[in-house]
Amino acid sequence: MTNTNQYLKNIGLEAKKASHLMAKVSTQQKNDALTFLIELLNSKAATILKANEKDVKAAKKNKLDRASIDRLIISSKTIDAMINGIQEIVDLRDPIGEIMHLNARPSGIQVGQMRVALGVIGMIYESRPNVTIDAASLSIKSGNAIILRGGSESIHSNIALSGLIHEALKKSGLSIKAVQVIDSTDRSIVKGMIKLNDYIDVIIPRGGKSLTKMISDEATVPVIKHLDGNCHVFVDKDADLNKTLKIIENSKTQRLGTCNTTESLLISKHIARDFLPKIVKMLHQHKVEVRGCKETLKHVKGIKKASENDFYTEYLDAIISCKIVIDIDEAIHHINQYSSHHTDAIVTENYERAMQFLKEVDSSSVMVNASTRFADGFEYGLGAEIGISTNKLHVRGPVGLEGLTSLKYIVLGNGHTRK
Amino acid sequence: MTNTNQYLKNIGLEAKKASHLMAKVSTQQKNDALTFLIELLNSKAATILKANEKDVKAAKKNKLDRASIDRLIISSKTIDAMINGIQEIVDLRDPIGEIMHLNARPSGIQVGQMRVALGVIGMIYESRPNVTIDAASLSIKSGNAIILRGGSESIHSNIALSGLIHEALKKSGLSIKAVQVIDSTDRSIVKGMIKLNDYIDVIIPRGGKSLTKMISDEATVPVIKHLDGNCHVFVDKDADLNKTLKIIENSKTQRLGTCNTTESLLISKHIARDFLPKIVKMLHQHKVEVRGCKETLKHVKGIKKASENDFYTEYLDAIISCKIVIDIDEAIHHINQYSSHHTDAIVTENYERAMQFLKEVDSSSVMVNASTRFADGFEYGLGAEIGISTNKLHVRGPVGLEGLTSLKYIVLGNGHTRK
Repeated sequence: MTNTNQYLKNIGLEAKKASHLMAKVSTQQKNDALTFLIELLNSKAATILKANEKDVKAAKKNKLDRASIDRLIISSKTIDAMINGIQEIVDLRDPIGEIMHLNARPSGIQVGQMRVALGVIGMIYESRPNVTIDAASLSIKSGNAIILRGGSESIHSNIALSGLIHEALKKSGLSIKAVQVIDSTDRSIVKGMIKLNDYIDVIIPRGGKSLTKMISDEATVPVIKHLDGNCHVFVDKDADLNKTLKIIENSKTQRLGTCNTTESLLISKHIARDFLPKIVKMLHQHKVEVRGCKETLKHVKGIKKASENDFYTEYLDAIISCKIVIDIDEAIHHINQYSSHHTDAIVTENYERAMQFLKEVDSSSVMVNASTRFADGFEYGLGAEIGISTNKLHVRGPVGLEGLTSLKYIVLGNGHTRK
Repeated sequence: MTNTNQYLKNIGLEAKKASHLMAKVSTQQKNDALTFLIELLNSKAATILKANEKDVKAAKKNKLDRASIDRLIISSKTIDAMINGIQEIVDLRDPIGEIMHLNARPSGIQVGQMRVALGVIGMIYESRPNVTIDAASLSIKSGNAIILRGGSESIHSNIALSGLIHEALKKSGLSIKAVQVIDSTDRSIVKGMIKLNDYIDVIIPRGGKSLTKMISDEATVPVIKHLDGNCHVFVDKDADLNKTLKIIENSKTQRLGTCNTTESLLISKHIARDFLPKIVKMLHQHKVEVRGCKETLKHVKGIKKASENDFYTEYLDAIISCKIVIDIDEAIHHINQYSSHHTDAIVTENYERAMQFLKEVDSSSVMVNASTRFADGFEYGLGAEIGISTNKLHVRGPVGLEGLTSLKYIVLGNGHTRK
């Protein structure tokens, strides 16, 4: 452990120094670095694809599961997506230095807040090498330094990508220590990073549930965490049938494995007899298994009974749980109890209940008449997203540039003293 | 520990339930509760004073130090201050339910953010019983539930105050579990509270450095912490002498024991010969000991040399350290290294350096030509303050109502699905 500690301390120290430099560079310099990175991804795509091939070959040899290999593969399409992502970040307004709420106080001073960089971000992630580019780009634009610790399965891809990032930083006159990729696959690195309070200001894990849970249980550095997405659609008694079917279909079946996919339906008992058979029929056409509460089984034959545990489950699969509720109060109560507080939606034409749902559901995204699949940084207009936070503190929901910043108070006086 | 765990779990469960109720009560109801509390503090002041006498008597018997006893005493003046504090909170705008940044996206949905309560606050504090009233009032107005764990030395005062708070909550139809005062002085309670992740959303410690450090080192619940206040005044070469003297006098001598008191001076070498003797003379008139760097000693005779450690020290006493710096870059570098990132000020008439200081100093409050003593919730117009945060995440600087809230995303659609 001592070697790991020393290794991490050096990286942390360099990151801290780089963060002080990054905090004061101009918007132009940051955009230049990102634009150079786009050029390099275009001109040196072959290097990236070649490094990635090594990782994919090793992953196949190590019999990594299919889904993980899929996430690992970089194609020229992936590179185009990276480039588009960077361009979006270039186009975003620089959040740093914004001054807000600057008001005069009775004492004569002016008090306001200024948006500043957080400092050093520690990112711990698995498989997807595109995270390396996304996270580095967001970190550069928000004036932070970042330490990236990707999965061992993508080590060659990540080192190749970091080579291009460093070239771009150098060319624009920025410190290459603003983006450091950990090239050791030693597992003790993760344990060390999450306790590196003197050098890292925030840890962002992005990966499986067990990784995130271990990190949030053990980290002493603050964590912007993303646990599971057990999302709900509640169909109110005043729901429109057509909108209901469209929203459930999109929320559940557009993609099965994403965190904003709906895993549970709540149906008002007043419309269950009419709506439920049509909803189940549509879901069955998409080969989605429905597991229902006792009341649900009365309306639709031949479906499996949901256990208590089903209502807590993020399936990430072609399964959905279904419960009939008496009214909106029961629906909200159920959601606040069973949901993972990620994203929950109501379908209704009733104004009062739409407002009540928005106000009382305790989740990072609450929606009216829209698919839960919209819970996403790009869809929300953040330009890019470094993750989706299920925290309540600091930042909740999709995390873009502003989530990587902090507000400090500024006071302007003219020799003012306190009475 | 099992009994403590069960005891805390019950309190946590009640708090969680109460927080769901508090999240939806009207502004009127919350203000009613606070107004009733003002009436009760007026009509039942004698009960409070009597309970407080018990604590003070016990404290004297236990030979508590003078400063702690001073903080413990409730006088009718203290009660007036509590009442004024509550009235300020009544007069504040209700932060809950505010919707901001609601914009249409190309997909057709509207995306915005809504300000909501955090949930359950755990407050751990020492001595001052007025914190019980301040924290409970802020928590009620911000729609949260709160668990208060005061020091054992103020247990009778806190129980008496909580009696009035419960009466006020009841009279306005709110759950009395919205404010729970822990009436056990068992020390294991604190250790248990800071790990009660299932029920407590944020821990706010307010007390000595060792308490805060223990809590932030061991807590798994997020902490809004306030470590020390090693504040600086930097006197730039273009400083006005008159403003300099006024600001240093106020920053250092108005009150010695507060966290926004200046503990260290940085003086530009260009004006040191002229300014330094006058600054030291003024400080000596206030019986403040000056400890200087080698260069300082050249300009002023008969003062003690500052050690490296002096520059890290929050004296909370009639001592100040002093260092001569070459330019603003050295000053900023020194502050970012030695400051506790609480509050730091520059005195200058130069526009460019004022802006540079505001931008580059990495502290929760950064000031130009104003006394560091202004770093305070009331002075900043927050109406009241539950503490001053030296965190970078979530909230930085004085923490008022908004620091006790969170922003969730809301999405308004009309049957929209994702492409």
